[in-house]
Amino acid sequence: MKKVIKNGTVVTATDTYKADILIENGIISSIAQQIQLNGAEAEVVDAAGHLVFPGGIDPHTHLEMPFGGTVSRDDFETGTIAAAFGGTTTVIDFCLTTKGEPIENAIETWHAKSKDKAVIDYGFHLMIGEINEKVLSELPAVIEEEGITSFKVFMAYKNVLQADDETLFRTLITAKELGALVMVHAENGDVIDYLTKKALADGHTEPVYHALTRPPEVEGEATGRAALLTGLADSQLYVVHVSCANAVDKITEARNNGVDIWGETCPQYLVLDITDLEKPDFEGAKYVWSPPLREIKHQDALWSALKNGQLQTLGSDQCSFDFNGQKDLGKGDFTKIPNGGPTIEDRVSILFSEGVKKDRISLNQFVDIMSTRNAKLFGLFPQKGTIAVGSDADIVIFNPNKERVISAETHHMAVDYNAFEGMKVTGETVTVLSRGEFVIKDKKFVGKLGTGKYLKRAKYNRIQNAMQEDE
Amino acid sequence: MKKVIKNGTVVTATDTYKADILIENGIISSIAQQIQLNGAEAEVVDAAGHLVFPGGIDPHTHLEMPFGGTVSRDDFETGTIAAAFGGTTTVIDFCLTTKGEPIENAIETWHAKSKDKAVIDYGFHLMIGEINEKVLSELPAVIEEEGITSFKVFMAYKNVLQADDETLFRTLITAKELGALVMVHAENGDVIDYLTKKALADGHTEPVYHALTRPPEVEGEATGRAALLTGLADSQLYVVHVSCANAVDKITEARNNGVDIWGETCPQYLVLDITDLEKPDFEGAKYVWSPPLREIKHQDALWSALKNGQLQTLGSDQCSFDFNGQKDLGKGDFTKIPNGGPTIEDRVSILFSEGVKKDRISLNQFVDIMSTRNAKLFGLFPQKGTIAVGSDADIVIFNPNKERVISAETHHMAVDYNAFEGMKVTGETVTVLSRGEFVIKDKKFVGKLGTGKYLKRAKYNRIQNAMQEDE
Amino acid sequence: MKKVIKNGTVVTATDTYKADILIENGIISSIAQQIQLNGAEAEVVDAAGHLVFPGGIDPHTHLEMPFGGTVSRDDFETGTIAAAFGGTTTVIDFCLTTKGEPIENAIETWHAKSKDKAVIDYGFHLMIGEINEKVLSELPAVIEEEGITSFKVFMAYKNVLQADDETLFRTLITAKELGALVMVHAENGDVIDYLTKKALADGHTEPVYHALTRPPEVEGEATGRAALLTGLADSQLYVVHVSCANAVDKITEARNNGVDIWGETCPQYLVLDITDLEKPDFEGAKYVWSPPLREIKHQDALWSALKNGQLQTLGSDQCSFDFNGQKDLGKGDFTKIPNGGPTIEDRVSILFSEGVKKDRISLNQFVDIMSTRNAKLFGLFPQKGTIAVGSDADIVIFNPNKERVISAETHHMAVDYNAFEGMKVTGETVTVLSRGEFVIKDKKFVGKLGTGKYLKRAKYNRIQNAMQEDE
Amino acid sequence: MKKVIKNGTVVTATDTYKADILIENGIISSIAQQIQLNGAEAEVVDAAGHLVFPGGIDPHTHLEMPFGGTVSRDDFETGTIAAAFGGTTTVIDFCLTTKGEPIENAIETWHAKSKDKAVIDYGFHLMIGEINEKVLSELPAVIEEEGITSFKVFMAYKNVLQADDETLFRTLITAKELGALVMVHAENGDVIDYLTKKALADGHTEPVYHALTRPPEVEGEATGRAALLTGLADSQLYVVHVSCANAVDKITEARNNGVDIWGETCPQYLVLDITDLEKPDFEGAKYVWSPPLREIKHQDALWSALKNGQLQTLGSDQCSFDFNGQKDLGKGDFTKIPNGGPTIEDRVSILFSEGVKKDRISLNQFVDIMSTRNAKLFGLFPQKGTIAVGSDADIVIFNPNKERVISAETHHMAVDYNAFEGMKVTGETVTVLSRGEFVIKDKKFVGKLGTGKYLKRAKYNRIQNAMQEDE
Repeated sequence: MKKVIKNGTVVTATDTYKADILIENGIISSIAQQIQLNGAEAEVVDAAGHLVFPGGIDPHTHLEMPFGGTVSRDDFETGTIAAAFGGTTTVIDFCLTTKGEPIENAIETWHAKSKDKAVIDYGFHLMIGEINEKVLSELPAVIEEEGITSFKVFMAYKNVLQADDETLFRTLITAKELGALVMVHAENGDVIDYLTKKALADGHTEPVYHALTRPPEVEGEATGRAALLTGLADSQLYVVHVSCANAVDKITEARNNGVDIWGETCPQYLVLDITDLEKPDFEGAKYVWSPPLREIKHQDALWSALKNGQLQTLGSDQCSFDFNGQKDLGKGDFTKIPNGGPTIEDRVSILFSEGVKKDRISLNQFVDIMSTRNAKLFGLFPQKGTIAVGSDADIVIFNPNKERVISAETHHMAVDYNAFEGMKVTGETVTVLSRGEFVIKDKKFVGKLGTGKYLKRAKYNRIQNAMQEDE
Repeated sequence: MKKVIKNGTVVTATDTYKADILIENGIISSIAQQIQLNGAEAEVVDAAGHLVFPGGIDPHTHLEMPFGGTVSRDDFETGTIAAAFGGTTTVIDFCLTTKGEPIENAIETWHAKSKDKAVIDYGFHLMIGEINEKVLSELPAVIEEEGITSFKVFMAYKNVLQADDETLFRTLITAKELGALVMVHAENGDVIDYLTKKALADGHTEPVYHALTRPPEVEGEATGRAALLTGLADSQLYVVHVSCANAVDKITEARNNGVDIWGETCPQYLVLDITDLEKPDFEGAKYVWSPPLREIKHQDALWSALKNGQLQTLGSDQCSFDFNGQKDLGKGDFTKIPNGGPTIEDRVSILFSEGVKKDRISLNQFVDIMSTRNAKLFGLFPQKGTIAVGSDADIVIFNPNKERVISAETHHMAVDYNAFEGMKVTGETVTVLSRGEFVIKDKKFVGKLGTGKYLKRAKYNRIQNAMQEDE
Repeated sequence: MKKVIKNGTVVTATDTYKADILIENGIISSIAQQIQLNGAEAEVVDAAGHLVFPGGIDPHTHLEMPFGGTVSRDDFETGTIAAAFGGTTTVIDFCLTTKGEPIENAIETWHAKSKDKAVIDYGFHLMIGEINEKVLSELPAVIEEEGITSFKVFMAYKNVLQADDETLFRTLITAKELGALVMVHAENGDVIDYLTKKALADGHTEPVYHALTRPPEVEGEATGRAALLTGLADSQLYVVHVSCANAVDKITEARNNGVDIWGETCPQYLVLDITDLEKPDFEGAKYVWSPPLREIKHQDALWSALKNGQLQTLGSDQCSFDFNGQKDLGKGDFTKIPNGGPTIEDRVSILFSEGVKKDRISLNQFVDIMSTRNAKLFGLFPQKGTIAVGSDADIVIFNPNKERVISAETHHMAVDYNAFEGMKVTGETVTVLSRGEFVIKDKKFVGKLGTGKYLKRAKYNRIQNAMQEDE
Repeated sequence: MKKVIKNGTVVTATDTYKADILIENGIISSIAQQIQLNGAEAEVVDAAGHLVFPGGIDPHTHLEMPFGGTVSRDDFETGTIAAAFGGTTTVIDFCLTTKGEPIENAIETWHAKSKDKAVIDYGFHLMIGEINEKVLSELPAVIEEEGITSFKVFMAYKNVLQADDETLFRTLITAKELGALVMVHAENGDVIDYLTKKALADGHTEPVYHALTRPPEVEGEATGRAALLTGLADSQLYVVHVSCANAVDKITEARNNGVDIWGETCPQYLVLDITDLEKPDFEGAKYVWSPPLREIKHQDALWSALKNGQLQTLGSDQCSFDFNGQKDLGKGDFTKIPNGGPTIEDRVSILFSEGVKKDRISLNQFVDIMSTRNAKLFGLFPQKGTIAVGSDADIVIFNPNKERVISAETHHMAVDYNAFEGMKVTGETVTVLSRGEFVIKDKKFVGKLGTGKYLKRAKYNRIQNAMQEDE
């Protein structure tokens, strides 16, 4: 049945205006001052006083991901439900590969994790651990058949995930040839490895040493190195989870020199800081991310970078672990604390409340950062990421004035704590549609497991120009 | 009567999609996959195979402006007709003031120049030559009653238009208090004055000395100075006609430091260069702008800056003079050549052809640079600058594939030459509507003199957030 | 009679070694492990345990200078005696000119002030207030006949000393042609003028407003502007009294781009800070310099700049006024406080104690910064500024370990306070020779008024290469 | 017997003056306008018309070094003789270690290579291939007993000499604790390895591909990385053989941020360029260094960096191979060409002729760059590196006006070609003394094998202050 969203304020990355939206067959078919139904049957949703914007696209999740002997707690069921409650209608999850095993198997594993669970649409990035002739021979199919058009390389986690510079450089060259976007976790794993061993040898085992052994300088260094290699390869790079001014500076310098480089930050870096890691009773473990939380001054640098376009997107880096039973693996040894936290649900809210409501970014930038730009970078636009005629009706109806408090007691993620516990935010997701179907309606989950579709994504397009093919 | 634009590809600063557009009462009332007229009477325009984008907004024109003993050739009649042929539906013209005379008089003069002539909508910027108590007392009315919310200060033209740093600084402070955007012509007039006198004393009178006496360093210096004063005043600045990498660097540095600064370039700096000034038979005089044309390498810097968001807008700096009878005032003395040229008509075409078609910027960036961003910066959004429900139907239907040659023989400006004579461009304006009325229809002017309306513009909004007032 | 300085540790800008020094006819004639007198008569000075270094060269003094209706308190008598007590054997004083009057008269005035008073050698810089044909015609004689090879331009003190950019640029061009070094007081006088009027209008009259109305940004801006003009003119520039990181950054950037630019700081900026201006009972007036004292963090930037060669020299900017009777002219109006303070005596001590003793600079850098580099930049080398065979015996014997407290009660300047009152320093001048004659001997003044000689200085030599003429 | 050098122009890093020098027991005992022998017996050397400066210190040589299956041609005999002919009186050679073998053995090997051959004094640097507990336990003895106070780490030569970042970081930390200076070969070996394999796979085997597979970006990247790690470790770093602007920029940025970092360039980078690698008949192989020769524009950047103090020293990186029999190992495969060339003899001449004579650096800077600074950085000052009372009489008498042509036919190195063949230089070493004994006399070798002494060097002193211990 057709649906009409009436009386809302439609917001895109450019526009803000009052209009009604007509949805037919899961697609936005009309936007008008007044939708005339002329007797046709349609379900009407009143959005008066509310914002109506494209569903969020979370470009960075780790659902049901093995890490350090355990598995991240939220899977494609709880993770995508929580995402929807938070105003996100698409996630792109990282598919981990194992050196020596066929990539195909890894992708198959990820399809198995997701297909009967996801309640919103989703895609995959592919992790690249090494580049050899075998891997090279598999990649074209990954792109052409699976529509996986982004590859991630780790510069940290020595002896585990860390790739050497040759692998990174070769991935950049290959990605350019094949039309993929390279993503990078940019921290100097060698220095971290030394500082970590040194800290443990000196008897420092508390959570805050996770941050003290990964100083912002090592993130800045690795970011600069990755940017340099990108320029040398004339390729394209997306730096995930930028946490500090040091990395922002390197991205900015490279962009201004014409390098095709993009930067993502995460909500935790915008509102939390290193002092959270010092909380007593091992509670600091809840705040262990890599890169780590920084001194509070870096928050200003990140907000300013979002405003000025030095950083372009917000990902959640969702990778949740229970405090009891998982995070506590690291009691007495901070290196054993599983890295990551629950952020998929609050990503959009925090950007709205701390960004738009506090005049740090505009409302249109908000939409761009949490949705539109991600769609464009990762080959989902204009199917996803905007409110425009012809696009999927992935729509959020949002109350911009509702004040509420984030809490594990009310969140929808599976974990036993919330990293933003007690934080007051303004703005609340009321209703969410995915391809025209309700997932959240009046704040209640009404979706169905497995309705989320796998998205084959288009190749990376350096100059986004959706209209070229039609000419 | 209603109008429907059918089958076109709608382009905004964010979106590109196929849709029909319904226009009622001069406003866009509906955008849909298919506009159902249901028997209502409407004029249908077929835009199949064409782009449909918001009319250009030219933020920088000098129509019928006195300069050096003569008056710029195109007035609000020929100027706005030519603008419309070029795909522009709004111009913001500079209202010159005279020291010691009431600002009101200057504005009255400008209203008199424009009101019975303009065929598209228009607004005014106000030139500030000095700040004293009298000027300060007049400015609130300029903003509140006239809706003139941008003030221009000249750092060049010593002993004529040049303001000292105190005037610039005070204008920045005042503008912030009143909600206006300061615009600046950034060249160090003192150094230029010396170099000019020196060149003449050394017997150098040819047009190319116009450029040689205004090197890029003096533009870079003045831009950096203006940016510094803006930061110190915590105010806002728009740098007009950026011509070189030196100035781009200063704007970028300031933006990254959190200064609210914006940069405009012009088509002449993107495609012409200093060698044009060396053309024989005094023809170089056709290419005398201030700042001057630069060495060709600066073109790359400007294009890159547009792509990366280091510069944000394109103005024409239209200020045309006939080659015969006006430019030739400077024969034998390059300082007497009237500064400026005819660019209002080709601004949009050149950006499309050289930018989009050559993959230097995206199609959506094109719309942003030549229209949307200007509307936002100068208080015209969302009435102007976008294709969205509720906005003025200022619409251009554009053939993106038509190849043609720019020439004075076919242009619509009043002057006797075209600065881009012989340049091949791809793309042509077919039809233009201003508030839903045809100005150009099938490449013919069908408008009426005086139908353009004066636009009272909103105050400058540092964080553009059109929805705040509704909350 | 010959003199021998025995057993000391000789220090130059490069070397540190134990040796005896033989002085004949005012000149250093021999340096040896042991000076063998072989029966010749000579006065022996034992310098065991002491440093023996070239007398300081203070490149920046204002003795008996008219300022704001009063005259600086120390003249060439008290000023040069105090200088000698502080380990300085040469001063270069600023000769003020008056617009419209012959330069010759100004120089004559300065000769009259100095010739019967100075107890150490001295030279003059020339202030340039404007450049016109008359001034241009006088400058060659200033250089060739008077040996005044440095010109100073003020970018601050609007409507008083301030020159416009054209004057500065023309001075740079002229200086290059004639072989002079341009000196600049770099603060944006226009902005200061506005902020000052604003502060007074707002009722802010206390001394600290002297600093608040001259923020570091205006020094950075003017420094950058002067550097740019220097590069454009391919000339040479010496920035006096650099007080802040903002200015250091601009000098560094220009040097790295190949501009021939040098920077001087002063002891007050190295050890005092803006909080001194807040001292009660109008005592803040003692600390009024232009540029003003800065926030304490700038001290680190200045020390680091001296160490890294981003700044090269230390001047005193000596310009002393009594607290009672002169500084109090500004009670109730900070703009009336005479600018400047007594620093000529403690310049060398502070650099030694705070620099060398605290490991911020090396002992050899100390000699370079307070003496050798000044000699090289201002055309006095190798006659002055080093301990080498053939150089003038301008020598300081210094106890590097003596601890003492700076105080007006013990200083030798004529003013009634000391800006460094109560500061503990390590190191004390014991004996000072000027051209082989004692000025200070065992901490007592033994010199004679008028024995100081006027120094005609050599032209500025961009590549210092004293040996070329001999080849 | 005593010696007197009469009538020369003595040059140090600071001074230039006419004087006689008296040498007793290998030490400079007196410098005077006229040395009075008073009947004592002494050999007199007339230096009239000549410069007399401290013997050069070459901080970077590879004598008799195994490389790629061969051994560098010049050993401590021919190498030090050639050095002396070139005006160098001290070399510091790199002692190569082998992973897993005791460092002691490596040092013993190097002592064996040198002790009966060297005709001038010499010291060793130690190469660090890895840092483990065993290596850590050996290093204190290396410093304390052997006086080897500088460690070198390679960031290039993957799978051969290349250390990972952890090794570099740990070496920096260890060096700081022990008082050593870390030296780094800064090129990104991973990227080079990939580009090299790619070039060979594409059939590119000619010498110029040596340069094309090691672009300046990879040197800039590695230099920036090493600088970052140095700052993080609060340690000290000396970057060897800087070849390009990219690396200069990184060193400058770090220095200005307070990092204790130094940069060395080599004569080949100052006067040769990438086009030399393209010489026909495999002659390009003569010009294979790592880093490689660069585009000619980098020469300007290097000269400017020497002048401004952004780079501080000149090393030869002497590592010579015969064209016939050694370089030709790489025929058909550029990766097999032994890296390096014969430069030990012409280092000083080229700096003098191209630097001083062409006004790019001053005469005093020349002395500093090729001698004094090296002595200070590597713990040899003031025994070596200056002409001062008490220093070793390592002295060069140099004819600054003699024009000559560099050629393999006249050079004293053992190799069959000269990299600077045919280059005209001004200036010639006439006589050289090492600790007061003639090595070269009137252009003839008069020294004796094995008279060069091994130098135990002092620890690295961040603030060079030779006088502290005496206080």
